[in-house]
Amino acid sequence: MKPIGVGVIGTGFMGKAHSIAYSASASVFGTGLRPNLEIVCDLSPDRASQRATDLGFSRYSADWRDVVNDSAVDLISVCTPNDTHAEIAIAALNAGKHVWCEKPMSTNLADSAAMAAAAKASTGKTIVGYNYTKNPAVTHARRLIESGVIGEVAGFFCRYDVDNEADGNRPWSWRMSRDQSGTGANGDVLCHVISVAHFLTGSTISKVVGDYAIVHKERTDPANANATKTVDNDDMVSALVHFENGVHGHIGASRVTWGRKCGLRWEVQGTKGTIIFDQERLNELQLFTKQDDPATDGFRTILTGPEHAPYAAFLPNGGHSLGYMDVKICELHDLLTSIETGEKIWPDFDSALVIEQAMDAVDRSVISGAWEKV
Amino acid sequence: MKPIGVGVIGTGFMGKAHSIAYSASASVFGTGLRPNLEIVCDLSPDRASQRATDLGFSRYSADWRDVVNDSAVDLISVCTPNDTHAEIAIAALNAGKHVWCEKPMSTNLADSAAMAAAAKASTGKTIVGYNYTKNPAVTHARRLIESGVIGEVAGFFCRYDVDNEADGNRPWSWRMSRDQSGTGANGDVLCHVISVAHFLTGSTISKVVGDYAIVHKERTDPANANATKTVDNDDMVSALVHFENGVHGHIGASRVTWGRKCGLRWEVQGTKGTIIFDQERLNELQLFTKQDDPATDGFRTILTGPEHAPYAAFLPNGGHSLGYMDVKICELHDLLTSIETGEKIWPDFDSALVIEQAMDAVDRSVISGAWEKV
Amino acid sequence: MKPIGVGVIGTGFMGKAHSIAYSASASVFGTGLRPNLEIVCDLSPDRASQRATDLGFSRYSADWRDVVNDSAVDLISVCTPNDTHAEIAIAALNAGKHVWCEKPMSTNLADSAAMAAAAKASTGKTIVGYNYTKNPAVTHARRLIESGVIGEVAGFFCRYDVDNEADGNRPWSWRMSRDQSGTGANGDVLCHVISVAHFLTGSTISKVVGDYAIVHKERTDPANANATKTVDNDDMVSALVHFENGVHGHIGASRVTWGRKCGLRWEVQGTKGTIIFDQERLNELQLFTKQDDPATDGFRTILTGPEHAPYAAFLPNGGHSLGYMDVKICELHDLLTSIETGEKIWPDFDSALVIEQAMDAVDRSVISGAWEKV
Amino acid sequence: MKPIGVGVIGTGFMGKAHSIAYSASASVFGTGLRPNLEIVCDLSPDRASQRATDLGFSRYSADWRDVVNDSAVDLISVCTPNDTHAEIAIAALNAGKHVWCEKPMSTNLADSAAMAAAAKASTGKTIVGYNYTKNPAVTHARRLIESGVIGEVAGFFCRYDVDNEADGNRPWSWRMSRDQSGTGANGDVLCHVISVAHFLTGSTISKVVGDYAIVHKERTDPANANATKTVDNDDMVSALVHFENGVHGHIGASRVTWGRKCGLRWEVQGTKGTIIFDQERLNELQLFTKQDDPATDGFRTILTGPEHAPYAAFLPNGGHSLGYMDVKICELHDLLTSIETGEKIWPDFDSALVIEQAMDAVDRSVISGAWEKV
Repeated sequence: MKPIGVGVIGTGFMGKAHSIAYSASASVFGTGLRPNLEIVCDLSPDRASQRATDLGFSRYSADWRDVVNDSAVDLISVCTPNDTHAEIAIAALNAGKHVWCEKPMSTNLADSAAMAAAAKASTGKTIVGYNYTKNPAVTHARRLIESGVIGEVAGFFCRYDVDNEADGNRPWSWRMSRDQSGTGANGDVLCHVISVAHFLTGSTISKVVGDYAIVHKERTDPANANATKTVDNDDMVSALVHFENGVHGHIGASRVTWGRKCGLRWEVQGTKGTIIFDQERLNELQLFTKQDDPATDGFRTILTGPEHAPYAAFLPNGGHSLGYMDVKICELHDLLTSIETGEKIWPDFDSALVIEQAMDAVDRSVISGAWEKV
Repeated sequence: MKPIGVGVIGTGFMGKAHSIAYSASASVFGTGLRPNLEIVCDLSPDRASQRATDLGFSRYSADWRDVVNDSAVDLISVCTPNDTHAEIAIAALNAGKHVWCEKPMSTNLADSAAMAAAAKASTGKTIVGYNYTKNPAVTHARRLIESGVIGEVAGFFCRYDVDNEADGNRPWSWRMSRDQSGTGANGDVLCHVISVAHFLTGSTISKVVGDYAIVHKERTDPANANATKTVDNDDMVSALVHFENGVHGHIGASRVTWGRKCGLRWEVQGTKGTIIFDQERLNELQLFTKQDDPATDGFRTILTGPEHAPYAAFLPNGGHSLGYMDVKICELHDLLTSIETGEKIWPDFDSALVIEQAMDAVDRSVISGAWEKV
Repeated sequence: MKPIGVGVIGTGFMGKAHSIAYSASASVFGTGLRPNLEIVCDLSPDRASQRATDLGFSRYSADWRDVVNDSAVDLISVCTPNDTHAEIAIAALNAGKHVWCEKPMSTNLADSAAMAAAAKASTGKTIVGYNYTKNPAVTHARRLIESGVIGEVAGFFCRYDVDNEADGNRPWSWRMSRDQSGTGANGDVLCHVISVAHFLTGSTISKVVGDYAIVHKERTDPANANATKTVDNDDMVSALVHFENGVHGHIGASRVTWGRKCGLRWEVQGTKGTIIFDQERLNELQLFTKQDDPATDGFRTILTGPEHAPYAAFLPNGGHSLGYMDVKICELHDLLTSIETGEKIWPDFDSALVIEQAMDAVDRSVISGAWEKV
Repeated sequence: MKPIGVGVIGTGFMGKAHSIAYSASASVFGTGLRPNLEIVCDLSPDRASQRATDLGFSRYSADWRDVVNDSAVDLISVCTPNDTHAEIAIAALNAGKHVWCEKPMSTNLADSAAMAAAAKASTGKTIVGYNYTKNPAVTHARRLIESGVIGEVAGFFCRYDVDNEADGNRPWSWRMSRDQSGTGANGDVLCHVISVAHFLTGSTISKVVGDYAIVHKERTDPANANATKTVDNDDMVSALVHFENGVHGHIGASRVTWGRKCGLRWEVQGTKGTIIFDQERLNELQLFTKQDDPATDGFRTILTGPEHAPYAAFLPNGGHSLGYMDVKICELHDLLTSIETGEKIWPDFDSALVIEQAMDAVDRSVISGAWEKV
C-alpha cells in the first residue's frame, strides 16, 4: 500500500463526504493507495481550522491556491460552489494534480469544455462526482445489460425528484435565478439522470426535446419579507430523448416534489427483460427476464450482496445494506484505481462534458421549442 | 327497482365483462335499475348461442342489427373490434338506445366525431369504457385533488406499459399495421393514460410533442414462417404535454415491456403534496402531504375501504380488495345512474372525443417533429 | 348447463356476498350448474322483502325453516350468526340439501362435531367459507409447494391482524364476552390462519401452546355511557404449533391492530425456497427459490394471471387483479363442481372440524399453560 | 477533540467493521474523542501484519494479551470467536480498559455473568454490539413509542431469518454442534431479536415458552465427503413471550431461510398505532396512527433523514440512505460519548446479560416443554 497525499477544497456536505471517504477507503479495500489527509481549505479560516481538526487533516488554509501548490498533495477534491469548479480544477490539473470534482462540472458549457481540455493536456486523472452510477446495484445492472440479460435496450425512462424547494414558503435564493445559477432543476438534478442514462445504456443522448415548468413563480424576497422576487429558472424539467444507439426514452427532474427525498427512479426496458431501480432503496434492483416460466415469473428484488462487486469489500453477507457514504467510497476507489493503474475511468472530464452537452441541448430545445441535437 | 333491457354486441373479454357486470350490478348497489339480459350477439351463431346460455341472455343473434332493433333493449354494449364501433354505436343511438362503448371510440378522428355528434342528437346516454378512472381509489384521488389536499396541481406523469407484444417471437398481426389498425401503443394503450390525465387534473391536454419507437421492426409472417412482415406502427409512444390549466407533464405507453402486466402508473405532483398510483395494486393510493410533521412524514399507503365511495356497496370492511370486474361494475353503475337521473356522466362520447383528439395530436406531432396543439 | 335452486339464510355481508356469487358464477365459468336464486331469508320480513328485490330472489321468508323445506332449493347458504349455524346446517342436511356455511362452523366443538356427523349421514355436499384458501394466488402456492418447488416444508408462520376493535373507545359488545361469543380473536380471526395452515402444508396442526392477551380490558357499557363492562375473551392470540408432518411454526391473530385492515400474512419456508403472501395484496405471491443464480436471485413478485387457474375464467390477461368477491365466486365454483362431479371438496365439514379442533387446542393450552395435543 | 487509543482483537468481518468505524467516527461526528488506531491482533502474525497495514494500525500482535497490556490503548474491541469473549473482555476490564464486545456476550450464562461482574468492578465502559438498535430509524421508533405516539404497547412480534445455512448441501460445521457452539439460531440470531425487543418496549422479557426445529438433521462431514454428521442444535427457534410491563408477543429466528439475507422484521402494536420495520430496508419505518382521518389513513413510509438523530451527522438531506457501516459508527459514537461523559450506555454488559438470560430461558423452556421465567 502506497500513500497518496490529498487536499480537499470546500467543507460543506461534499467536502465532508470526500474527507470521510479518504479516511475509510484504504481500510475498506485493503489494497493500493492509502490517502494521507494533508490539507483542507475553507473560505473562513476559523471554519477551515475547525474542519481540519474534525476531519483529521494535517493543515488547513483559507486560500484554495495553497492546496493546489502543496507539494505533498497529489489529489485534490473540488467541493466548492459550481461556478468556481472550472478555475480551481484547471489550476489543479495544470499543477499536475489529480482531480475529484463534484457535479455538475460548471455552470456553462464553455467552462466545462475548458476543464476537459485542461484534463486532456495534463497527466492527472479526473472524475466528476456522479455517484449514483457507482452503487454496486447499479454497476451490476450495467453488467447485466451489457451481457444481454434483458436483450437489446429498447427504452430508457428516468425521473429524479427532490423536495429541496417544494415548500412555496421558502424564500427566493440565487439558485432560482437563471443569471446567477444557470438552469434550475436541469443543471442541479437532471444532470444525475443523464449520467445514469449514459452509464446504463452504454450510449449517449443525441437528440432531445425539452420542457420547463416554474411551479412557484414568485417567492419571498429574503431581504424584504413584504416583497417577492421572481423565479426565472426551471423548477421542473422534462425531455424526450434519443440515444446514439437508437434507444428512445424520456427523462425528467424536479426540485419541488413533495415526498421525494432522493427520488431517482429509472427503468431500462429491453427486448428480453426489464430492470428497475429506486435510489431511495439503493440496495435493491428489480429484474424481470423473459427466460422465466410464465407461471412463476415476476420482477425479482435483488438485494445487493457479495456477488455484486465491490460490495464484498464492505460486507461479507448480502442484504446488510450499503449507504450513500459507502457509494462515495466506491467512487473514490475507482479514481484511486485509475491513478494506480493508469486506466481510463468513467466519468472523467471528457465523459462528463458529454453529460453537460446533453443538459445544454435540453435548455436550447426549451428555448427553440423544437428537437435539438446534442 | 325498475328493469332495464340490455343487449351485448361482441362476446370477447369485454363482452363477457359487460355481461357479468349486468348480472351483478343490482345485487351490489341494491337500488335503481336492474338489468335484464335480453340478447347477445356474436358473428358466429354457434358461439352466440353458447354465450347466451353461459352468460344468461334470453336471446341471441349473429347480426348486431337485431340487437339495435330489439324493442326490449334499452341499453347496448358495443364490445366489437374498434373499427366497427362507430357504425354500431351510431345506429344504436339513432334507434334511441343508451350506449356503453368500449375504448377507444374508433380508429380515426372522423368516426369518433360522428359518434359524438350522434350522441348529441339523441336522447341516449353514452359512456366509453375508460375504466381505470372508475376505481374508488382513483375517484378518491380525484376528490382529494379537487379539495386541495395536494394544493395546486403542478405536474402530471404517467406511463402505461403492458407485455402483450413484448415477445419478439410473436408473429405479425393486423394490430401492427398502421393501415389496418391505425396507431399502435398510442391508440391501444396511451388512450387510457390520457383518460386518467383528464380525469385527475380536471383539465384537458392542450399541446403535445410526441415520439414513437418500433422495437420489434420485423415479425414472422403468420402466413409464412420463413418470411417476415414489417411492423409500421408504434410499439412505444411518449409525449411531453401541457394542459389547459397550465400543468406540464409527460406521458408514455408501451405494448412491448417485459414484466408489466397492467402497468399503469401515475403521479400527480402538487404544490402541497403528491399522489401516486399503480394499477397493478389497484386498492392502494400513495399520498404525501405537506401538513405532516417532518419527523414522521412519508408517503402513506391508503387501502381502499368504505370511506371511498362506492366501495361500501361491495364490502363493509377496508382492505378486502376490489378487482377489475368490480371496477367494471362501478362503471356500469355510473351509466345506470346517469340514465336514471338524467345527469351528465364522464366520459361520455363528448368527453371521450377530447381524449381521441389528444391521441391524434401526439400522432401529428410525431410526424411533424414539432409541438402540436390538440 | 343445468339449473340448481339456491336459498340464502342471513343477509348481512356474507349473505350478500353469497348472493352476488350465485348471480355471477355461471357467467364467469360458463359451464356446469347455473344457480337459480329461489328464496332469501332474514329475521325481519321487511328486510327479507327488500333483499329479495335487491339481490334478485324469487321469494323471501322470515323463517329459515321455509328455506330448508323449499322443494325448489337444492343448495343453502348459512350466513347467520355463528351460534345458529349448527341448527340450520343440520336441518338443511337432514332435508337433503347441500350446504355452504360461513366460518367458523359454530361456537363450540360439540356443535361442530354434530354438523360433521350430519354431513357424513347425508348425501349433501358441504363447504365452510374459509375463502382465503380459494384465491388463485394461494391455490397456485399450494401447487408450487406440492410439486416441490420450495423443497420440503420446514416452517409455517402466519398472522392475521385486523382493526375491527382497535379503537378502545368502541363500546363493549357481546363479541367481547366469553360466555356469549366463546373465544375472541381465536374463534373469529385465527380460524382463518389455521385454515390456511392446513391448506398450504397439506397437513394438520397436531400440537400447540397458546397465549391470549386482552388489550382493552374495560370498555364503555353500550347501555350506560358512565359505566364500563369487562372484556373477558382474547383481543390477541398467539401459538407455537407442530404439524402432523413434522413442520414447526407459529401463528397469531389480533382484532385490535391499528392499520391492518385485512392483514393476513403467511410465509412458508422450505428446504429449497420460500413463499410469502399478504392478503392485502391478494394478487401477488412472493417466491424465492434456490435454483436461481445468486447474482440475480431475489424474491420475485408473481402477479396472478391466466397461468393460475381459475383466474382465466375471470380475465384473459395477467395483472388485472381479482378482488374479494371474485374469490368468493371461486369458492362457490368449487362447491358447484363438487356437487356436479361428486368429488370431495376442501374444506367440507369434516376438514373444517379439524380446524375447529386446533382452535380448541389453543384455547385449552392457554388455560392449562402447557402444550396441548389437537 | 481528544485522542483515545484503540486496539482491535480479531480481524474478521467485525474486526474490520470496528476498525473502519474507528477511522471514520471523528470525521462524521466532529466532536469529542478521536480514535488513534494503535494495535490490531490476529492469531496469525502474517495476517495481523497485513491487517495493520490495510486498516491503518500502528502496531500488531498475534497475542491478544499484548493489546490488553498496551498502555497506549484505552478502548479494546473484542471481535474474536464467541467462546473467547469472556476471557479477553474480563482481562481488558481488569486492565482498566473500555470494552466494545461483539454479540453474543459468550456461549454460556456463567461466562456472561462473570463479564457483567467484571464490568461492574471496573471503571471501564462497556457495550455489546447489538447494532440493530443503533440505527436512527430504530432509535426514532423508540422515541415515538416512548412519547406515546402509538399509545400503550400492546404486542411485540419479531422474526430474524437469514440464509447462512439454508443450503442443505453445506457441510457440517462446529456451529451445528450444541457441544461446541451452544444453541444455534437461538444464540446466533435470536439474540438480536431479544435486543430489539428490550430496546423498543423499554421493558424486558420475563417469561417464555420456546420451540426448536432442526431442518437439516444430517450434513456432510467436512472431513469425509462420504459420511454425514448430525446437527444437534436449532436451525429454527420460536417463542411466545411476556414482558415485565405486561406486553405479550412472539419471536422467532432461523439460520436456514431461503431468500432472507438480513431478514429482521419487527412490529410493535400499540393501543393507538402500529410501527413496522424491516432491516433489509433499514432507512424506512412504517407508522400508522389512530389520529389520522380514516379516509386518508394508511401506513406511512418514513424515510430516515436529518430529523432522526444522529442521521444529520452523516448526511444533510433525507432519503440519502445510511448503510450497515454507518450504523456501526453510530454504535461506536454511543460508546465514545459514554466514555467522555460518564453516562450509562445501552446495552452495556449489565443490560446485555439480561438478553442472554432470555436466550437461556428459551433454551430451558424447549427442554422442559413448559413456560419458563427469565
